[in-house]
Amino acid sequence: IVKGLREIERDIASGSFQWDAALEDVHTNIENALVARIGDAGRRLHTARSRNDQVATDVRLWAREHVDAILSKIKAFQEVLLAAAEKQIDTVLPGFTHLQHAQPVSLAHHLMAYVEMLKRDAQRFCECRQRINILPLGAAALAGTPHKIDRHFVAKELGFEGVAENSMDAVSDRDFLIELGADCALVMMHLSRLCEELVLWSSPEFGFVEISDAFTTGSSIMPQKKNPDVAELVRGKTGRVYGGVVALFTIMKALPLTYNRDLQEDKERAFDVVDTVIASLDVMTAMMRSVRFNVERMRAAAREGFLEATDVADYLVEKGVPFREAHGTVGQIVLYCIRNGKRLPELTLDEFRRFSPHVDPKIFRALSLESVVDRRNVFGGTARRQVRAAIKRARRDLEK
Amino acid sequence: IVKGLREIERDIASGSFQWDAALEDVHTNIENALVARIGDAGRRLHTARSRNDQVATDVRLWAREHVDAILSKIKAFQEVLLAAAEKQIDTVLPGFTHLQHAQPVSLAHHLMAYVEMLKRDAQRFCECRQRINILPLGAAALAGTPHKIDRHFVAKELGFEGVAENSMDAVSDRDFLIELGADCALVMMHLSRLCEELVLWSSPEFGFVEISDAFTTGSSIMPQKKNPDVAELVRGKTGRVYGGVVALFTIMKALPLTYNRDLQEDKERAFDVVDTVIASLDVMTAMMRSVRFNVERMRAAAREGFLEATDVADYLVEKGVPFREAHGTVGQIVLYCIRNGKRLPELTLDEFRRFSPHVDPKIFRALSLESVVDRRNVFGGTARRQVRAAIKRARRDLEK
Amino acid sequence: IVKGLREIERDIASGSFQWDAALEDVHTNIENALVARIGDAGRRLHTARSRNDQVATDVRLWAREHVDAILSKIKAFQEVLLAAAEKQIDTVLPGFTHLQHAQPVSLAHHLMAYVEMLKRDAQRFCECRQRINILPLGAAALAGTPHKIDRHFVAKELGFEGVAENSMDAVSDRDFLIELGADCALVMMHLSRLCEELVLWSSPEFGFVEISDAFTTGSSIMPQKKNPDVAELVRGKTGRVYGGVVALFTIMKALPLTYNRDLQEDKERAFDVVDTVIASLDVMTAMMRSVRFNVERMRAAAREGFLEATDVADYLVEKGVPFREAHGTVGQIVLYCIRNGKRLPELTLDEFRRFSPHVDPKIFRALSLESVVDRRNVFGGTARRQVRAAIKRARRDLEK
Amino acid sequence: IVKGLREIERDIASGSFQWDAALEDVHTNIENALVARIGDAGRRLHTARSRNDQVATDVRLWAREHVDAILSKIKAFQEVLLAAAEKQIDTVLPGFTHLQHAQPVSLAHHLMAYVEMLKRDAQRFCECRQRINILPLGAAALAGTPHKIDRHFVAKELGFEGVAENSMDAVSDRDFLIELGADCALVMMHLSRLCEELVLWSSPEFGFVEISDAFTTGSSIMPQKKNPDVAELVRGKTGRVYGGVVALFTIMKALPLTYNRDLQEDKERAFDVVDTVIASLDVMTAMMRSVRFNVERMRAAAREGFLEATDVADYLVEKGVPFREAHGTVGQIVLYCIRNGKRLPELTLDEFRRFSPHVDPKIFRALSLESVVDRRNVFGGTARRQVRAAIKRARRDLEK
Repeated sequence: IVKGLREIERDIASGSFQWDAALEDVHTNIENALVARIGDAGRRLHTARSRNDQVATDVRLWAREHVDAILSKIKAFQEVLLAAAEKQIDTVLPGFTHLQHAQPVSLAHHLMAYVEMLKRDAQRFCECRQRINILPLGAAALAGTPHKIDRHFVAKELGFEGVAENSMDAVSDRDFLIELGADCALVMMHLSRLCEELVLWSSPEFGFVEISDAFTTGSSIMPQKKNPDVAELVRGKTGRVYGGVVALFTIMKALPLTYNRDLQEDKERAFDVVDTVIASLDVMTAMMRSVRFNVERMRAAAREGFLEATDVADYLVEKGVPFREAHGTVGQIVLYCIRNGKRLPELTLDEFRRFSPHVDPKIFRALSLESVVDRRNVFGGTARRQVRAAIKRARRDLEK
Repeated sequence: IVKGLREIERDIASGSFQWDAALEDVHTNIENALVARIGDAGRRLHTARSRNDQVATDVRLWAREHVDAILSKIKAFQEVLLAAAEKQIDTVLPGFTHLQHAQPVSLAHHLMAYVEMLKRDAQRFCECRQRINILPLGAAALAGTPHKIDRHFVAKELGFEGVAENSMDAVSDRDFLIELGADCALVMMHLSRLCEELVLWSSPEFGFVEISDAFTTGSSIMPQKKNPDVAELVRGKTGRVYGGVVALFTIMKALPLTYNRDLQEDKERAFDVVDTVIASLDVMTAMMRSVRFNVERMRAAAREGFLEATDVADYLVEKGVPFREAHGTVGQIVLYCIRNGKRLPELTLDEFRRFSPHVDPKIFRALSLESVVDRRNVFGGTARRQVRAAIKRARRDLEK
Repeated sequence: IVKGLREIERDIASGSFQWDAALEDVHTNIENALVARIGDAGRRLHTARSRNDQVATDVRLWAREHVDAILSKIKAFQEVLLAAAEKQIDTVLPGFTHLQHAQPVSLAHHLMAYVEMLKRDAQRFCECRQRINILPLGAAALAGTPHKIDRHFVAKELGFEGVAENSMDAVSDRDFLIELGADCALVMMHLSRLCEELVLWSSPEFGFVEISDAFTTGSSIMPQKKNPDVAELVRGKTGRVYGGVVALFTIMKALPLTYNRDLQEDKERAFDVVDTVIASLDVMTAMMRSVRFNVERMRAAAREGFLEATDVADYLVEKGVPFREAHGTVGQIVLYCIRNGKRLPELTLDEFRRFSPHVDPKIFRALSLESVVDRRNVFGGTARRQVRAAIKRARRDLEK
Repeated sequence: IVKGLREIERDIASGSFQWDAALEDVHTNIENALVARIGDAGRRLHTARSRNDQVATDVRLWAREHVDAILSKIKAFQEVLLAAAEKQIDTVLPGFTHLQHAQPVSLAHHLMAYVEMLKRDAQRFCECRQRINILPLGAAALAGTPHKIDRHFVAKELGFEGVAENSMDAVSDRDFLIELGADCALVMMHLSRLCEELVLWSSPEFGFVEISDAFTTGSSIMPQKKNPDVAELVRGKTGRVYGGVVALFTIMKALPLTYNRDLQEDKERAFDVVDTVIASLDVMTAMMRSVRFNVERMRAAAREGFLEATDVADYLVEKGVPFREAHGTVGQIVLYCIRNGKRLPELTLDEFRRFSPHVDPKIFRALSLESVVDRRNVFGGTARRQVRAAIKRARRDLEK
């Protein structure tokens, strides 16, 4: 049998195998070919098996292989993000809440947020993999095979970490596909957030990034125009993957035990979901490698919105001004700035002193973007010291 | 501060705390009450915090507590199923594929399939809990607090297993709610399958179970009628939970960093999803405890559909008849039965011998439902020996 | 230009057209081929057009054509259901609520419920078609073409009933695809309900229908077995279509005006949804034509559950017994039946009289299934007179 | 009976009615109260009815009333948009594709795109209303009432436009709720697009709008900051409504006829979906009334990106330059501008002539934003003449 299957494998690989659509499926095709080659012994191929447990096994083998592929794609993407972060520790841009400038942050810190998201994604896939990697074979149609086989031996040979404990569950369980789908949907959600930012940042209003031509489309007559098509496409594909997960959940709703033919519908959706995630991770990895950050625009933007205001208040508090009084004073200084079209670092020492006698020339150091960033020197904060440490930790984790 | 908060806690518990809807939220209410009681020191409550990291922390505390509740509900439900299984090892019913009789199985084996599903559910919640149990506090609005706090100390005090590594991610990450929601949806999917079976099995056509009056509605004029309302309601609530997960995924799609007010919408959906799962597990546990299995109807049904046919073929093979010939012979015997309105065990030895001289009186042992069930004596199979072992393993796991 | 395009059309039809994947899309392929054939005049093909309004127009043409296909498929399916209903007016089966026997109904009445659902489906598609059939061409990229064209003339030539009133909306509106998708999902929901019934009714426990071999799979060794695979597959495909609609909704969420490349993702999902509905309607039509109803099993089932009980109470009320008393009496009669293992029509006149002296021999007429059915003689009720009228109305509507 | 019900109605309205939770539902509460007041005649209230057709009727009455509410909310919102459009005909902003500047458009044109979307929404609700407004009463439990009632009379009295034609369909049809839900989801999708734009336009980078304080939150220390919370919340609520629709679809999947208790789950989801849409339309209407457009910022942005380039090419074509040559020339002019940091209208006549001798001083008229806008003078285009006509049409439609 093994010899016959090897031959068939070679024929399939070389394209010379004759598939017959009239035979129900791949199993019957191969069994018939085997019988044709090696005679009656070939009929024993199906011993102790049923299509139900065989299909369940095949899908799990497929899922295991593709989880591994996704894991390596996630890693590759994290590496590109890390490499970008390493170069952008000193780049300051406004951190946004509500799409409003909130506080200046290091661009590296911003990029590392995505590395974190992907870290959780990878964790989830690893855990899902353990639930995938369970052998259904031996469950037969639903009740267990009457043949004396050693399922644990088969599991070991095929690299499964466990053996399904209940034959009826084994042939009708598709939890692992739904879980895999939900994990994929979370990846796409993360990518959609990054794509949204790339689209925003590519707009003339933001102008924070330039994506290379390979990932944009242009206009011959407006040569400066770069439509961030790829980022938009990946963002759109989020819908496709969300929809795939809904399909899988819907299919399984209220199905009585055990195998029902509805289950056949799981495959196309699962394949599409996984293929989409893999392709999206690939293209994001390549695209991020090509992104050029417009450091000057980012820095200029970080100067808008009086993001240093809380730091000025803290400065006053350190000088002994009560917290509330300090806050009130800064509010007035900002109003003064607005009325006079100035930014905080553009005020003179005299102007500051009109509002508070406690101000001394050191205020200007407190007002530098770097100093504002670096004061967030808590574990996980945007201070460059912290960001450097975070990158180092992530680098070490990835190498494991 | 601690003393003041303790007092406020007591007042809230006793109902005497005056909530003021005009104050934005619970945080401001408590802070103001604290200041009213202990004076200016109360204003320090908010030091090194922002609403963004506080809300994220609160939601994680809520999620952690509710995951634990779900885990204990799953366990309680598994125990009821296990107790039922222990009593029904010898009950035989038809195992179904395509809602057709396929092979006789032990009712205990059927019930244990659900114990397996719930085991995977519990695993997923445990793993999700680890991702929930990460401290965001210290991330402040988004960039990290400028105050010198020890986030790892806070984490330890609050029972968190880790500290969020990136402040921008920390205030905008809702992965854990989506993952929690997806895990809940899988539980509901499993419950919907069991409910579907309870509804089917309660129908006059099946008549396999009787659900007690507490979980059914009736009719005064048709006193035998028992509508399986609770099973239908739980099946219906699957839609509610699926919808909740879709809501959470949709909310997060394409949100730029960091906090956006859209995130406020996550709470009601997450609460509803979790409350629904907890209530559904509770009522299923109580209902399953009340289910009376109609052992005779099940056994009679297992006799329908010539489910012993493959075992007769195996019997012939053991007598030395080639596999294919055996199959052909049994096909003819079954046709004979259909034409004569007989079941296989109702044939006489003479009738069997008309089709094959190899049949001897021991065939009747092979035809007993128990023997058919017990021949599936593979790990995870329906043989009673295997089912007993499976119950023992599950019992041991639950006790851990 | 027209002559050149005709030639290209012929070449495409005959398969001799050389597609060049390097050219961005079908538009560029055709434009280049045209220029190659007719020279510079071909370059005018794109005058007053942009890819944005062209794609929108193409998708609408596709949608219009496929709505018409769906409408004709729905009609064909309704005709098969109607033909079946016409033959089954006198067939009585239990009407179910909660999958419990509630009241006997005519099988024709049951089948006509699906004709009604499909009638609403058809209405929705007709209305959606009006919103599809609006011309975007002339909107150009987003602002309207600067060329002096007559959009109303173009609309008339292409069979559009209206002209998009706002160019920015025209190039980014995909409402019609989502609405089409939701209408398709409702069709699938209806089919899933019928499929569920076919699966239930094919089970040995119900045995109400036999689906022909072309739509079932079997087992050589259990020749009576017929797995209702096709009904299960269509039921499963409901998930696929639900998922497709979720994908479309997700894609459009929060997209700023006007065209964004995310929109490209709408096509594959829309095609898949529509193709699935068309294929499902086709196979359901063929399958329903093949279904054999087991009239005897249905009738026997209608006898189970004391479904005549309310009619006996009504009989007593007509004899002058107060409503509540009548109900109480019938409750006792039914209990008597349950204890004695009898059905209501199996009681003797004497037995009836033990409970109420008002009973006379005419009670037995009231107890016939036909009489129970025919008493529901209200518009839309199951009385055969009403069912005949309903079939006539439906037949007339379909012919329009 | 009528008198008794009137009294009960008064009591309910005044809050003095005693609800008894022990009685199953509102129907039983009212029936019991009626019997308590008017004696045995009250028991006739339930004649010719069943809870199944009564609930179906109630839900339809609810849906009808709320569709009307939604329609009036849509109209109110359209009026606010129209009023804004009327004032902004001359305001020019960049029309975006891919969030890149594509062509200058009138702000009124942009706003009118949303009026169009809402017009389709209103159409859909009107059509859905016709399917809602069908009387189920008389269907009784499922088979039709045996009482001689005139359903068409009841329909007329209750304002229903039709009578359900099949009693089994009547008690289990929830199409109208799903359709209503899908229509609501489309409204939310439209609102999410507008909210996305409001959030974008409120960002410091765009600065196109200022939303009034009632709909934003701020910061005492950064008084210029306005977080567009309400726009974000409505965008987030899109998820809630999408999820509600998925819930409804899921609930109905594969339910056999007729009534099943799963249907009870439809109500909370439908109520939530409809309430969310109504509240969202209300707040959007109020918020849009408060939006201040930053006309100068918009105009300045429309100057960025060489949006006049195609019009310059058209200008050259009109001067007799072949199309392709004209395009090539303009491409070079734009490159020159980029290199020299100039916009097209900032070039001198001499500079233009360096690239083409055909340029005369009239080019500067072609370069004005107004002229670029007005050249899109096709039905549905952004030319101010067309926009004025579109507003007039919309105004007239709304008044109908």
